[in-house]
Amino acid sequence: MKISNLTDLLAHTLEDVYFAENKVLKALPKMAAAADSKDLAKAFTSHLKETETHVARLEEVFAMMGKKPKATPCPAILGILDEAEELIKDIKDADTRDAEMIASAQAVEHYEITRYGTMISWAKELGLKKVAAALEKTLKQEYACDQALTKIAEQRLNREAVA
Amino acid sequence: MKISNLTDLLAHTLEDVYFAENKVLKALPKMAAAADSKDLAKAFTSHLKETETHVARLEEVFAMMGKKPKATPCPAILGILDEAEELIKDIKDADTRDAEMIASAQAVEHYEITRYGTMISWAKELGLKKVAAALEKTLKQEYACDQALTKIAEQRLNREAVA
Repeated sequence: MKISNLTDLLAHTLEDVYFAENKVLKALPKMAAAADSKDLAKAFTSHLKETETHVARLEEVFAMMGKKPKATPCPAILGILDEAEELIKDIKDADTRDAEMIASAQAVEHYEITRYGTMISWAKELGLKKVAAALEKTLKQEYACDQALTKIAEQRLNREAVA
Repeated sequence: MKISNLTDLLAHTLEDVYFAENKVLKALPKMAAAADSKDLAKAFTSHLKETETHVARLEEVFAMMGKKPKATPCPAILGILDEAEELIKDIKDADTRDAEMIASAQAVEHYEITRYGTMISWAKELGLKKVAAALEKTLKQEYACDQALTKIAEQRLNREAVA
């Protein structure tokens, strides 16, 4: 894809994030299965459902821009998920593994937060109000997911302090 | 490195972030040279100096934990920087390239923000107050850098609107 202007760059980033969300969709069931804490497993399962809506919303945004949905491999998300998978496999202690899984999931959330934030500002710059509004819905959910993970991390700490 | 508990996990993440900060140190002069906007080039150059202090601070934290500084390859930062380098090379229009460079730099900042945030919470959990305090200094600067980049993105938009 040749990138000559901001519209091209937005389309490219959409393809990048479409790839990333689809990868996350495949990673979440594995993370839910590997979680020791029931709350953490539940958070991953509920974020899986949200991620399905994010993928569908991206498909709507492609349509708004007169484009077909396309996934362009995103080395950033591959790196984040590779790192997570390797660590999850290597850590035998369940509580330490949960701590790492929360951290990895927050790294994924922050990647999505920065990309959605950028796409929203570009869409506004380009006068694509409907695109910006759709992406803002997803951004809010990504922020909420990050905060929910922070809460679970705090619960993990309290549980451990009591144990 | 065998990770058996939270102390090991914190040490591993320190090595991961030490690798990441050193990679960023090498990437920033290239980004400053490629920037069209003088403000953006200046922001990259000033963040380079900050990054040097972040590396030195990580070395102090290794010492606080009785460890020698070590860099463990971090696939996440490699992915983020690879993606950035490829796009910067491919985009010929200077203004569009600046927009992408701001976005890439913000992706790097968000990766660092999530990792420092995680390390601070683990250090507190482990009662390592000095470690947490040192890492908090860096986290504040990463947030400030992210905000500075948002301002430059807004200036870029205003400049373009005037042109």
